[in-house]
Order: sequence, then C-alpha cells, then structure tokens
Amino acid sequence: MLEELKHAVFKANLDLPKHNLVTFTWGNVSGIDRNTGLVVIKPSGVDYETMKASDMVVVDLETGKVVEGDLNPSTDTATHLEIYKACEDIGGIVHTHSRNATSFAQAGLDIPALGTTGADYFYGDIPCTRKMTPQEIAGEYELETGKLIVETFKTRNIALKDVPSCLVYSHGPFCWGKDPDNAVYNAVVLEEVAYMAYHALTLRSDLTRMQQELLDKHYLRKHGKNAYYGQKKKN
Amino acid sequence: MLEELKHAVFKANLDLPKHNLVTFTWGNVSGIDRNTGLVVIKPSGVDYETMKASDMVVVDLETGKVVEGDLNPSTDTATHLEIYKACEDIGGIVHTHSRNATSFAQAGLDIPALGTTGADYFYGDIPCTRKMTPQEIAGEYELETGKLIVETFKTRNIALKDVPSCLVYSHGPFCWGKDPDNAVYNAVVLEEVAYMAYHALTLRSDLTRMQQELLDKHYLRKHGKNAYYGQKKKN
Amino acid sequence: MLEELKHAVFKANLDLPKHNLVTFTWGNVSGIDRNTGLVVIKPSGVDYETMKASDMVVVDLETGKVVEGDLNPSTDTATHLEIYKACEDIGGIVHTHSRNATSFAQAGLDIPALGTTGADYFYGDIPCTRKMTPQEIAGEYELETGKLIVETFKTRNIALKDVPSCLVYSHGPFCWGKDPDNAVYNAVVLEEVAYMAYHALTLRSDLTRMQQELLDKHYLRKHGKNAYYGQKKKN
Amino acid sequence: MLEELKHAVFKANLDLPKHNLVTFTWGNVSGIDRNTGLVVIKPSGVDYETMKASDMVVVDLETGKVVEGDLNPSTDTATHLEIYKACEDIGGIVHTHSRNATSFAQAGLDIPALGTTGADYFYGDIPCTRKMTPQEIAGEYELETGKLIVETFKTRNIALKDVPSCLVYSHGPFCWGKDPDNAVYNAVVLEEVAYMAYHALTLRSDLTRMQQELLDKHYLRKHGKNAYYGQKKKN
Repeated sequence: MLEELKHAVFKANLDLPKHNLVTFTWGNVSGIDRNTGLVVIKPSGVDYETMKASDMVVVDLETGKVVEGDLNPSTDTATHLEIYKACEDIGGIVHTHSRNATSFAQAGLDIPALGTTGADYFYGDIPCTRKMTPQEIAGEYELETGKLIVETFKTRNIALKDVPSCLVYSHGPFCWGKDPDNAVYNAVVLEEVAYMAYHALTLRSDLTRMQQELLDKHYLRKHGKNAYYGQKKKN
Repeated sequence: MLEELKHAVFKANLDLPKHNLVTFTWGNVSGIDRNTGLVVIKPSGVDYETMKASDMVVVDLETGKVVEGDLNPSTDTATHLEIYKACEDIGGIVHTHSRNATSFAQAGLDIPALGTTGADYFYGDIPCTRKMTPQEIAGEYELETGKLIVETFKTRNIALKDVPSCLVYSHGPFCWGKDPDNAVYNAVVLEEVAYMAYHALTLRSDLTRMQQELLDKHYLRKHGKNAYYGQKKKN
Repeated sequence: MLEELKHAVFKANLDLPKHNLVTFTWGNVSGIDRNTGLVVIKPSGVDYETMKASDMVVVDLETGKVVEGDLNPSTDTATHLEIYKACEDIGGIVHTHSRNATSFAQAGLDIPALGTTGADYFYGDIPCTRKMTPQEIAGEYELETGKLIVETFKTRNIALKDVPSCLVYSHGPFCWGKDPDNAVYNAVVLEEVAYMAYHALTLRSDLTRMQQELLDKHYLRKHGKNAYYGQKKKN
Repeated sequence: MLEELKHAVFKANLDLPKHNLVTFTWGNVSGIDRNTGLVVIKPSGVDYETMKASDMVVVDLETGKVVEGDLNPSTDTATHLEIYKACEDIGGIVHTHSRNATSFAQAGLDIPALGTTGADYFYGDIPCTRKMTPQEIAGEYELETGKLIVETFKTRNIALKDVPSCLVYSHGPFCWGKDPDNAVYNAVVLEEVAYMAYHALTLRSDLTRMQQELLDKHYLRKHGKNAYYGQKKKN
C-alpha cells in the first residue's frame, strides 16, 4: 500500500539528520497521496538508525485514524493533517527543531526577508505565530497547532504555497513543499536563512526588509510562470 | 564485577566525543548499581581513544573508596556521589564542558525555559549555582561542588529528577538521568537548549520565560503518568 | 574544446561543497581562456553529486552566447562576464551564498579590514555594493549585477585584483582570482574573514580598521614585487 | 639529524587541521632541542596534504640560519625563536589563525579568565599585545612580533609558562608548551576558551573575571607541586 510514497517519506526522514536538522528523533516528515486522501508519516519516537520504510504509518486525512502500520504515528500527526487540508498544493510536510530557526521561534520573531538566499524560495517574511491560548494548549494541542499555523497565514494574507514555512511560537518550524523531499529542501533553506538573519540583525539593529523589487525578481525567476532558473525544472 | 554497568558507563563515555560534547578528556560519566551501592566511573585523565571498559573504576557510594580498578577515578567522583545520594531516581551522571552550556555557566546565568525543545526534558529553567565561597574552594572542593548542586535544587524547590542538569558557576554543567545513557542524552539536549537560548536572548533582550501551560504540556506529554509520546517507552 | 579548463572549472565547483561554501546548488564557478575569449561555467541548477566535467558550458565573453554544451549555463553568467571584461588579470570567478559573508551582504555592510588573516589576500575593506535600483532589477538583472560590482570598485578607487571579492547588497559574495582554483581559495578566505569580523565587531562596537602599515606589510609580503612568503610561488 | 623531533613537529603540524585550527596552510608548529640549540619548524606555505616529515626545516636558535632543509622555513620563524629565548621551559610553539581566538585579537581584547575550562591550563587572562608601532612593522617585523609577545608578558608580570598563549593585536594567537604536541593542545584549549568567552561576554556585559580562589584551585590541581589530576602525569 502506497509503497512508493512510504519510501519517499522514509528517505526524507533520513535526510533530516544528514542535513543536521535534527538531534535524536526530534523531527518528522510526512507525505500525502491526494488521490486516496491518505497520509504517510514517521512513527513516534523511533530512532533514525533502526527505522525501516515499512515502519511508516498510514493515516486517513479526514479522520486521522491509522489505516496501516503497527507503530504509533508521530504525535504531531494532527498538525500535519490540518496543513494538508488548508492547501491542496502541499504534498509533503516536515517538522524539526533545527537550531537557528527554533531560536527565532523561541524569541517569538518572524524571520524577515533580508536577502536573495531566502527570496529564491520564500516569497516574503517567514511568520511566527502568536502564542497559543491556555485553552488551545489544554485542548487538542497538536490539532490546535495546525489550526494556528493556518490562521497565521490567513490573518497575514499569505498563501501557504508562497512561504513554505512557519515558526510556531516557543516551539519550532513546520515546513512544507510539493512532496516530502521538497519539504525537507525548504527546511534546509529555512535553517540557512535563519542563520543569516540572526547575524545580519545582530550586526545592524536598524536593518529593514529587502527591496520588494528584488524579492519579486528572485522568487519569480524560480517560481513564476516566466521562471528561467535551472534546466526546465524547479526545486 | 558489575560488567554490564562497566560496559554501559564505558559506552556512555565514548558517546561524549561522538556528540561533540567534550574536547580531549574533559568529561566523565558514571553509573550506579543501587543494589550494591557501588558506582562505576571513568578514570581520571585517560584518552577516549585508548580507554577500555575494564579501565572503569568502581567506588563505594558511602565511603568514596575505590573498590576495584588500577587507575585513579575521575577527580569529580565526590561530586557524582553527592548527587547520587540526593536522589534515588538517578542512575547515571555526566560532567562535560560543552561549549554553549559552559558559556552560560561562565556568565553565571540560568538557562531560562524558552521553548518546547527543552520542555520535553527539563521541567523549568536550568539553574546556575551561586559562586562557591573561598572556604568551599579551599576545602573538599569536589565534594562541596556536589553539595552546592544539591543545595541549589533545594533552595529553588526543584526536584533533581524534574530538571536533570545544573550549571556550576564559572565551571560547567553536570547532567543526570535514569542510567548513564540517559544522562548523556540529557547532556546533548542541554547543549542544544543552551545554543538556542543564547540566540533567542541575544535577538530579543526583553524575552521572558515560555508560558507555564506550554511547559506543562510538553513535559507531561513525555514524562507524566498520562504520557503519550513514542512507542510506550520514554527517553 | 578547452578540456583542461573545463576540468579545472569542474573541480573548482566541487571544491565549494568540500569547503562548506554552498548548500545544494547555490554556487557557481567559471574560468576564462583569454586567448580565445571563451568562458567555461557551471550549468544552472545541476546537483554537484551527479555533475560531470563534460556538463560545463562554454560561452563567448563578448556575446554571452553558448558556444558548446547541452545545458543552460548558470543564470549568473552575465555577472561573471562583466567582471572578466573589467579586469584582464582575472582568470576565475565564483559566486556563493556562504553563510557569514552573506550575512554582511544582507546587512548591507562592508567587511572592514580588521586583521592579518584578511590582509594576506585582501588589500583593504571588502566592499558591499549599493542597493540596485528598481530599473536595474527589472532590466537585465544579472548583467546589471556585474556592472554594479565594477562600478563599486571604480567609485571607491579599488583595483579588482587587489580586493578579490565583493558583496552584493541583500544578495551575497562574488569572488575572483587568477584561475578558478584561486577564486575558490579567496572565497574560503572571505568566509573566514567574515566570521572573524562578525565576532570582533560584536565584541567591540568601537572597533576601527587595522593600521594601514600592518595591512601593507601583510598584503605586500605575499603579493608585492618583494614578496617573501612561501616557496617562490604565491597563492 | 633530530629525526625524532622532526617527526614530532611534523605530526603536531598535521594535528592543526585535525583540530580545525587552520585553513589551508595558515599555521605552523616548531619544536626545540635545548641540547643543541636547534629548532625544527614547518616550511613556509606548504600544503598539509603533501608535506612530509623530511620537509621540516632545522634552524639555529641564536643565528636563525637554516642548518638543514631544502625549503624556506616558516616566515614566522623569527617570532618562534624570540619566544624560545625568553623561556627555557618552552619546548614547542604554534601559530594559528583559529577563528575565535583571532576574533579577540582583531578586537584587540584580552580573553579574560572566566571559567575552569581555561583555568586548568591558563593561570589568568590571556593577554592581547599592544598595537605594533610603524617602526616595528617596517623593521624586522617577525622578530619584532616575538619581542612584542615577550614584552607583553614582562609588562604584565606574567610568566610565559603560566599562560601559554598570547594574542597579537590585529593578527592572531601564538601558543606554546613543553613540547610541540603540548603546544597544539594549548592551542585547542585557547580556541575553546575564546568561543566560551565570546558567548559569556555577549550574554552579560557586566561580566567580570572568575574568583581568584577558583582560578588557583583549578590551575594548581593540574600544575602545582600538589597536582592530583590524572594518572600521575599531566598534560
């Protein structure tokens, strides 16, 4: 069942330690099959070193119920599902506690659009959510986390596909993409961008966002209908 | 004698350089056998590259005397013993000079609870001790270091098992856990948390502790009686 | 055609990930054959892991037209050509988004000459360009980037060969040298220098440039006609 | 001639990239044979990857003349010799541009004694020299650098053997020890200590030196006549 997607999700999970995005088991990647409405996700708290593709858990997008798999799915499953529901263009989601992005989340700050490194992939600032309310935390916490991410993008009038990452206040980043591999790609970009933003902001306290024209140029040269970067495919 | 524990302590010591927590010989791990009241600890100043499991030294918890082993035990042995005596739940202890945690110790600052990365393992701020008095330093220094750690937790009304790390002022971290492997695990978490706290605090000077509700949620989802993270076991 | 140069350019591109200067495909190196006026450059958006020497693209310095190669040349080709045209001593050019240098570019700040580490290779501050105008961005953007770099050096009265790097505002560094390998060498130096400058400047806000005499001494002991460093050749 | 020392110097030079203390050829180690008054030092500007033990150059302590070797000795040779002359206990010297120590040198700041990590090896602050005068730079620069280091320790009343490192203003660190291996050891400690000092100082601007009693305790437990760390030998 969904063997190809399971393998893609498995491989994307293994790419997290390869790119130094996770410590121990602190990350999870999922992928969705839009035809069947089924999501494949990493099991909860399993070591990357011993994990197998067949350990991936299949859950139903609408009900969140486990459809296949002997292990518990990631505790963050409900967050993933909420993001999939909010945007049909999303094919993969990743959650990490990568060091520099999480530092911004702990500071409760957006990562402002400061340069072309980010502008090639993120069409604007990477938003940090508001704090959760005590009610949201006490309720279905992981579901509420997903709702909060979606709310953040709606409130700020950002399309989820245009800025494929969100920082959850006091917590860490969720990233997404057209498939699991692309979601991990964006998580790597986010970490680079967070490193640079930290250093640029601490070098110069009066720093402001990059020019809108330059942001447009770089994002659209890779993602718009007139994209001309690469060999006729995009990352 | 205690072959299994010696091997666990030996392996946990080797995990320190693997996780980039130590330079040269600057760290030590111990483990305790509560049935016999014997502690197994790394010898003093021996290279990780040539060290063998059989080099581990066995000392008596109550007297601190060497029971088995040809080498001198770690100079920090008396500190370890004092911590074991203060909390029966502790099965392993580690001391390192890991870079980011030690930076906070040198600044004489607690690492405040700022995010879920720490909240999954530390139920609150990671305390930094007061400075030692000249008398404590001139006396049985390593024993006094242990007493100071225990005093710090008592004064602040923190249970040692709830916050498994302490920063010793101008010195560095001691961490603990249910066994030697778990103590090293917590030392890795501490170093990550210290890195993030440094960056969050220097990004935003008015930063305050995370919400208590969120701290409760994350710590208790892994450690409370209603824990639901992972596959029915906890790290 | 130009097999030796293609191999040198190919190898120099592979040296970028080896020196931790690039993430994914975010960098490109070119080399020029001054006799034929042909430039060899990395193809656009191709993975370093699968790239072959025969994938290198040959373009004409004057027209920018592809002379040989099945793949699109780097989108930054027009920038490279403009720099080659401005200084005949330049034999290789590299563009990266290396973390620390890019942080200065995002802050819109020069990297001041603060120590001998840089002075051995850069005869003064490493300049950051002005912002581009909306017209430049909307026009032939990559060509305008090259023109801006050349303008920056002219305006400041710096010879391109004396300071072999430039930071493009909100973007990142371009570096050059006598050949592709030397351009990558200078990109590595730049990243080291940026790291040190960040830390020195944040340690001491009143920090000023190093003494001119010391800058002269170190640069000229390696590059002047009385150079005496090394074994009768220079890097 | 001096084969054992040549091998020790060669190995110590190779340890520099192993410990991430140098980029390219930016470092050099020497060792001295006090019986013959001969110093063995790395050749100038030779790659670590191709260097052989037989490439090491032998120079005379008093005259600085090359006694054996086909290659030019390190340009920093005169600095090394001046340090050897100033303290008979020194058996090895190393110069690097290691990132964090050099950042302090570029800021022109001492590295204050802030914790036990440094106190185990450095009996006090690690001094940064004054700026060199234009006359010193224009004269026998490398010799003057050595004289400046010795002057710095005399002026501040520090014994060279008690604080085995010095930062040269706008330049970088020189470190020493009882032999070449020990000099490299101290260079590694210096880099760790510089990293921690940077972070502690930027966390807390009112930070002051550690207690003298604690500094005494840690230094003397490893180096005094009553030393009790390790297995009856010291690093």
